[in-house]
Amino acid sequence: MNTFSHVPPGFRFHPTDEELVDYYLRKKIASKRIDLDVIKDVDLYRIEPWDLQGTKTKEQNEWYFFSHKDKKYPTGTRTNRATKAGFWKATGRDKAIYCRHSLVGMRKTLVFYKGRAPNGQKSDWIMHEYRLETNENGAPQNTSFHR
Amino acid sequence: MNTFSHVPPGFRFHPTDEELVDYYLRKKIASKRIDLDVIKDVDLYRIEPWDLQGTKTKEQNEWYFFSHKDKKYPTGTRTNRATKAGFWKATGRDKAIYCRHSLVGMRKTLVFYKGRAPNGQKSDWIMHEYRLETNENGAPQNTSFHR
Repeated sequence: MNTFSHVPPGFRFHPTDEELVDYYLRKKIASKRIDLDVIKDVDLYRIEPWDLQGTKTKEQNEWYFFSHKDKKYPTGTRTNRATKAGFWKATGRDKAIYCRHSLVGMRKTLVFYKGRAPNGQKSDWIMHEYRLETNENGAPQNTSFHR
Repeated sequence: MNTFSHVPPGFRFHPTDEELVDYYLRKKIASKRIDLDVIKDVDLYRIEPWDLQGTKTKEQNEWYFFSHKDKKYPTGTRTNRATKAGFWKATGRDKAIYCRHSLVGMRKTLVFYKGRAPNGQKSDWIMHEYRLETNENGAPQNTSFHR
């Protein structure tokens, strides 16, 4: 297989949930080579959502990133989703992602609030956080990515 | 540059009018190599629109083709856009396509009617026919393509 440095004119990155989880996230977690380096690494809790825009290409209003989850406390399991200016808060239910009738991952939707909980001010920034479902007890992986 | 036999997962062919005319149609007319053979040749006046569907990939409701214009009479300039079952009829005005402020092509919109003019029955099949604008008198090329 070729290594792609770009795609031909007219092609846009509009992945399905299944492609994001079962191809891109699965390869990333396994440290396997991804054909085209289209999803960048970013630490989403050290960057404000409006600063992510610098990485966008024209006419794009969605961005895709890989990011590590940050624990709230070193020994705990809770996730720290705060930035300097605000925090990401989950909304709704997680959506199951299937590939040929098997569960391959989950998608969590989060909204960005400015300020500090419980007094944050809701913004119109939305993130979808994808995680892989593994066979062992369905435990979520630490790596996820976002748009 | 590589020859692409496919694009990585997650990429969809959603070209702009400018890319269709200034890259794909321009290369086709000049018989230059196109990176990825994503637009097939078809004789649109020997095939009914519903028979084009056989060539589609899943979740797609647009198709792209290269096709030669067929003259109504061997010596004339009028275009024959009839198939066995009906005909394509232009609607509205042609749209100018610009690339960095220069006119590079035109887009004509056509609707498919079943039957024979002037008694055809309008269908919901739409075609956009692109043609290159050349510098010499702005004469349209004989080759165009469709979606």
